[in-house]
Amino acid sequence: MKSAQIPKTDKPRVVIVGGGFGGLQLVKSLSNADCQVVLLDKHNHHTFQPLLYQVATSGLETSSIIYPFRKAFGKQKNFIFRFAEVQKIITETNTLETSVGEISYDYLVIATGATTNYYGMKEIEERSFALKTIEDAIKLRNHVLRNFEEAVLTSNDEQRNSLMDYVIVGGGPTGVEVAGALAELKKHVFPIDYKELNIVEMDIHLVEASPRLLGAMSEESSKKSLEYLQKMGVKVHVGISVKSYDGYTVTLSNGEKLISQTLLWAAGVAGNPVAGLNEQAILPNKRIKTDAFNKVEGYQNIFAIGDIAAVTTEATPKGHPMVAQPAIQQAVNLAKNLKKIFKKDTTLKPFTYKDLGSMATIGRNKAVVELTFVKFQGFFAWVTWLFVHLMALVGFRNRFFVFFSWFSSYFSYDKSNRLIIGDKEQTIHEHQQNNT
Amino acid sequence: MKSAQIPKTDKPRVVIVGGGFGGLQLVKSLSNADCQVVLLDKHNHHTFQPLLYQVATSGLETSSIIYPFRKAFGKQKNFIFRFAEVQKIITETNTLETSVGEISYDYLVIATGATTNYYGMKEIEERSFALKTIEDAIKLRNHVLRNFEEAVLTSNDEQRNSLMDYVIVGGGPTGVEVAGALAELKKHVFPIDYKELNIVEMDIHLVEASPRLLGAMSEESSKKSLEYLQKMGVKVHVGISVKSYDGYTVTLSNGEKLISQTLLWAAGVAGNPVAGLNEQAILPNKRIKTDAFNKVEGYQNIFAIGDIAAVTTEATPKGHPMVAQPAIQQAVNLAKNLKKIFKKDTTLKPFTYKDLGSMATIGRNKAVVELTFVKFQGFFAWVTWLFVHLMALVGFRNRFFVFFSWFSSYFSYDKSNRLIIGDKEQTIHEHQQNNT
Repeated sequence: MKSAQIPKTDKPRVVIVGGGFGGLQLVKSLSNADCQVVLLDKHNHHTFQPLLYQVATSGLETSSIIYPFRKAFGKQKNFIFRFAEVQKIITETNTLETSVGEISYDYLVIATGATTNYYGMKEIEERSFALKTIEDAIKLRNHVLRNFEEAVLTSNDEQRNSLMDYVIVGGGPTGVEVAGALAELKKHVFPIDYKELNIVEMDIHLVEASPRLLGAMSEESSKKSLEYLQKMGVKVHVGISVKSYDGYTVTLSNGEKLISQTLLWAAGVAGNPVAGLNEQAILPNKRIKTDAFNKVEGYQNIFAIGDIAAVTTEATPKGHPMVAQPAIQQAVNLAKNLKKIFKKDTTLKPFTYKDLGSMATIGRNKAVVELTFVKFQGFFAWVTWLFVHLMALVGFRNRFFVFFSWFSSYFSYDKSNRLIIGDKEQTIHEHQQNNT
Repeated sequence: MKSAQIPKTDKPRVVIVGGGFGGLQLVKSLSNADCQVVLLDKHNHHTFQPLLYQVATSGLETSSIIYPFRKAFGKQKNFIFRFAEVQKIITETNTLETSVGEISYDYLVIATGATTNYYGMKEIEERSFALKTIEDAIKLRNHVLRNFEEAVLTSNDEQRNSLMDYVIVGGGPTGVEVAGALAELKKHVFPIDYKELNIVEMDIHLVEASPRLLGAMSEESSKKSLEYLQKMGVKVHVGISVKSYDGYTVTLSNGEKLISQTLLWAAGVAGNPVAGLNEQAILPNKRIKTDAFNKVEGYQNIFAIGDIAAVTTEATPKGHPMVAQPAIQQAVNLAKNLKKIFKKDTTLKPFTYKDLGSMATIGRNKAVVELTFVKFQGFFAWVTWLFVHLMALVGFRNRFFVFFSWFSSYFSYDKSNRLIIGDKEQTIHEHQQNNT
């Protein structure tokens, strides 16, 4: 029989579920704490999600944006990793049921992040692509490249267009960044790779239900990103939503129909909670309600940080934005509080969010940046975006590889990782042919 | 309906099946030839097979040893690529049946390389790992890392050993190199990653049926590589073959039993021919019999190069070694001959093989090298091996990434790509538990 085989010590055991930005920071911040730190994750590596879109669009190789947990913390003495999926929390006995057996905890920190929100649209969930894991990114990259290999084979105009056209739903950073990266492939890479095709046939649609792109940023940034994308040839549809998608035809709320075998759904996220918490702790958007100390409502020794946590206070009735910064800052604060708790010190510090700003890149020399006191766009914003993302990566090696990839790509206008790796997928196209 | 959609021109069409070392070189050597060059491959990228073992053992990232064909030849005007599998040659009509429709040829060059030879042992074919494609390498890497994640979970000694022990069958360069790389993981990486385990329990077995390792090289190199491997703790079994493997127990020809959930089969290769050639052209080892001009027996316009081709002359009754150099040299010679054929020049040049030597690496500072007039081992051999492999890689970018990986790994003693990527495999271990 399997058992998690976690050694018993006389120190308190902190179990962290999920090694995203929050979980990773918490492990690090507890490195000198007098406790056992157990990290559980269903991947054996951290994923730097903000750059997944570059893997999906052949700009970066897979390994440079992911980092093995055991490598990251191999030398941290109080660190234990288990490659495990958590199935249920048994709060009565302070125990987790996991894929590797039962694990007991003294303190539990839920850092399971967010998952894609399809708002109940099963049809879209089954047929669209998402961008939350490294596997998602590889799948999308394979699909785009396969589509182009298929497109050279058909003399049917509509079919060829269904392969060459892309529909991205959601005008947040992910949607904007993917649209921009595809526009760059269209301009610089695909015309050389696929001389047989008339590249002007490639249409990139970005569909956003609200009236503007990058809704979390200022009007100024929205306007500028729209301008950039349109200049790059992206067809932006704002104030319009997707009504249905059968894998081939996208029907928009204004009645317009787009033909595409690729719909990327980047239109919403929801919390990704673990089963077993009481119902009052779970909000309608599946986030977990916590107090200002990241303590989950109704429990004394269960905490939540990052995207999954809605730190619900008077100042933040809906919690913080579901991005990296709140997760990291909550982890740092929680680590301090946990260390106090271990010492029976009750002067805990409530979490306060320091908004460092936000940014999105659209393409070479094009980005929008908003810091606390200043907004700017264009080349300098783009350099800022590059620098911030480079520094946020885990490990010198990954930083070096990403830097070199960006550097060489900037001068060559190339995206080198146009690689189809893995088993053959049955394309929707083939699927339809088989059915007819 | 799909159709290969290859434009008709008044120039002769050379169709090359397979983009390994031979196919790649032939495309390059025909860049200035007055013909249409059509490359067909079931991958969209060239794979640098000599370094697959480093991907499998977490030393190199996937993308640095593979290279997209369309990127390699995007600027070569007479080049056309189709992502296709060839099903059959119809020699009567000079046509190929492929997964993307029919393709006609004026000249056909078969460069499909070699496949793993299990000598009819189905049981081993189904349960063992191979190392011929990038997917094989990723699968083996995932499996080794999953095994170690499983090993920390069990208190059953035999089960833990079945996960921590590795059996490599075949003492050629691949077997020797994998054994060496696993020994390095055992010495430098896994003791830090898996503190919970007693790493001395990890056994690496190398089984070779003939009396010595690296049989294609000299006695001196065999002896030295054996000495290196034994010093690194690898258990080498020479003059012994594998009788059976049920996924858990390996039975050797001397009656000894080894317990391991991982058997890497690197004990033999066979040709990988395309259906449709006459039977006389196919040798018992599935290689294709050609004359000194690489022309396939019985045909005027079909050629074969590389591993698949047995260039059968009085001097080479069994053809050349199935390694990169003959493939590359045959491609260069065939390109010259084809250019003459296009011009109705009948003074074709027969192929002569210039043996540049052979080499294998065992681990850091350890390799064996044999050049025409000199044999040497140790540090200088190892540097030679690194240099030759680095220079043979396609593209500056890949060379740079591999160089940097090796450089940093040399000083850190680390292998960074300890990444499990892709869908969950059902381990044999789980499978057996389910069955009991």
